[in-house]
Amino acid sequence: MKIETKVEKFTEPLHLESGRILEEFELIYETYGELNEDKSNVIVICHALAGSHHVAGRYADEAKPGWWDKFIGDGKTIDTTKYFVICSNNLGSTFGSTNPLSIDPSTKKEYRLKFPVLAISDVVKAQMRLYDRLGIKNAFAVIGGSMGGMQTLCYAIEHPTFAKHYLAMATTAYTRPWAIAINKLAIESIRHDPIFKNGFYKKDDLEASGLPGLAIGRMAGLIAYLSPGLFNRKFGRDYASTDGLYELFGRFEVEKYLEYNAYSFPKIFDPLSYLYICKTMNIFDAGRNKDKLADSFDKVQGKLHLISFSDDMLFFPEEMEEIRDIMIELGKEKQVTYKMIDSKCGHDSFLVEVEKFKDYVSEILKD
Amino acid sequence: MKIETKVEKFTEPLHLESGRILEEFELIYETYGELNEDKSNVIVICHALAGSHHVAGRYADEAKPGWWDKFIGDGKTIDTTKYFVICSNNLGSTFGSTNPLSIDPSTKKEYRLKFPVLAISDVVKAQMRLYDRLGIKNAFAVIGGSMGGMQTLCYAIEHPTFAKHYLAMATTAYTRPWAIAINKLAIESIRHDPIFKNGFYKKDDLEASGLPGLAIGRMAGLIAYLSPGLFNRKFGRDYASTDGLYELFGRFEVEKYLEYNAYSFPKIFDPLSYLYICKTMNIFDAGRNKDKLADSFDKVQGKLHLISFSDDMLFFPEEMEEIRDIMIELGKEKQVTYKMIDSKCGHDSFLVEVEKFKDYVSEILKD
Repeated sequence: MKIETKVEKFTEPLHLESGRILEEFELIYETYGELNEDKSNVIVICHALAGSHHVAGRYADEAKPGWWDKFIGDGKTIDTTKYFVICSNNLGSTFGSTNPLSIDPSTKKEYRLKFPVLAISDVVKAQMRLYDRLGIKNAFAVIGGSMGGMQTLCYAIEHPTFAKHYLAMATTAYTRPWAIAINKLAIESIRHDPIFKNGFYKKDDLEASGLPGLAIGRMAGLIAYLSPGLFNRKFGRDYASTDGLYELFGRFEVEKYLEYNAYSFPKIFDPLSYLYICKTMNIFDAGRNKDKLADSFDKVQGKLHLISFSDDMLFFPEEMEEIRDIMIELGKEKQVTYKMIDSKCGHDSFLVEVEKFKDYVSEILKD
Repeated sequence: MKIETKVEKFTEPLHLESGRILEEFELIYETYGELNEDKSNVIVICHALAGSHHVAGRYADEAKPGWWDKFIGDGKTIDTTKYFVICSNNLGSTFGSTNPLSIDPSTKKEYRLKFPVLAISDVVKAQMRLYDRLGIKNAFAVIGGSMGGMQTLCYAIEHPTFAKHYLAMATTAYTRPWAIAINKLAIESIRHDPIFKNGFYKKDDLEASGLPGLAIGRMAGLIAYLSPGLFNRKFGRDYASTDGLYELFGRFEVEKYLEYNAYSFPKIFDPLSYLYICKTMNIFDAGRNKDKLADSFDKVQGKLHLISFSDDMLFFPEEMEEIRDIMIELGKEKQVTYKMIDSKCGHDSFLVEVEKFKDYVSEILKD
């Protein structure tokens, strides 16, 4: 599989939903497979909160492959011998696209808290610029889960002729207060970390292990992305060490897991970027500026495919069923498919339980 | 209704489950109504993590009454014209019973991190001392929800002839990793707060608003104690102020609610006490030291009443159904009742949806 990672710089201003303007921006993106002659074999992948453009394959120095490697590759469900797959790092994210630590051309300093709040629409609009640059006018499919699913819904509504298929998994048409509350734990934990200094932290202070406040915020996410049942099966009440029971800080296995995964996270993720992305997710509402949500979905022209996961504790199946119902009420029953996967890994099932939906995806994307 | 608040000091050592000894301890407790002549009208109430001995009635300077005032009082479900109700502040808690900030008689200094880890059994054993002091040999009922329900189960198993009825709500026979994970957010958030100083914080540093790390831990609890449905109904996607949408820290109503309730909490609750109580909950396992959980419930001699709440996101109905099933398998079907309440307020339903279970409780406790 041919993998390429590139950066494109855009110097035409990007007018944001907020009314603010990004005078210039960069997107880092990765592609898999080869673009065919008439540029008709494109599949766009949209990544989630902490994801990146590195979707599949493995770099020489990597222990783990890209985050959806089970799903995408030569001969896999999203077959890179057939399709040209592209994923950009979301605007605002920490892995190489323009974000709050980028240089504001008007001040020649890092934006920090002067970075504009981005809507999902803005993130998608920036990506459309990239396709334009690459001469790509249409995609066969746009696919994403979680925040990537929000982008997918946004593509379906706001760029209705861009793709034939829009496949959104484990997501919602509008972020509900439960998910906002979980993001709130991260926001508060980052803000109140004294090293954060209202966004003016010194990078040197972060170098060793990043911002502890971000780790705790991430821990809240790690809990919400899994499920009680998975925790029971994975950890039970086992102790990480035998002296745990009557030691105040004696650790259960589940605590060890959370510590390991939470405290390693700030080494790779910037806290300002995390704050901005939480905000982008929180304000997502496909029905904004409309009388009702149906007015937005009435714009859909492609096929909208929805997959939910039964034990998703972040975006519940009912949230995706609401979209399906709206499509049916609009008389678009031939343009919508919906399936709830009987999942065991909570919200993260879209990443880890690929076996359970890959055949179904092959079926719905077969033409 | 006659309300009395008293403190009793116990100087006989309390041998703890850990093997450690509390040389002396105090319990603050509150009583409602009058103890009858043969001391046969006692109902014991056990409180939850952040609860206190102040269960019912209203002090002169109080805006809100005690935490179960809807349930307990003259002419209420737990009728204080008939019963003598008693609730002690749990050992280790912050409201007046011996806790990590109490003076260790062996050093004449505060225990701080030298305070022993307490098991639910220890908390209950201390309470049994109190009843002994008051000449109370038996109770008509022991009632509690959440961590109070753990105590109730412990009473039923370890003090099986003490009460006639044991009513446990919204609780579990053993704390599962999901609940441990939620407590973990508080533990990490407290430990990593620089003011905490590994338990040697100066009380003056806390005076203004308490420990922010505790507030964030509490916020995690506030989310887990409610439910997605309640959040939808209560907050929707409303903003607390109109300039919220594109302001990075613009607040949704749900965020305002969480901030208010979380940041007011450390003013009344000590972080060390919170850490110790989280640990006490985390290590609760009614089946510990037994081959299987059923061996513990085989000891039950009274009537064990179980109430779960359908949208409880902390201790799920299945956890209480497991206890019911064990009782039935043990041939104790006449000693167990179980009801799942169709609730709308999550875990906290046991506190706020009293209307939905009060008649049922009257029925099961009628003789």
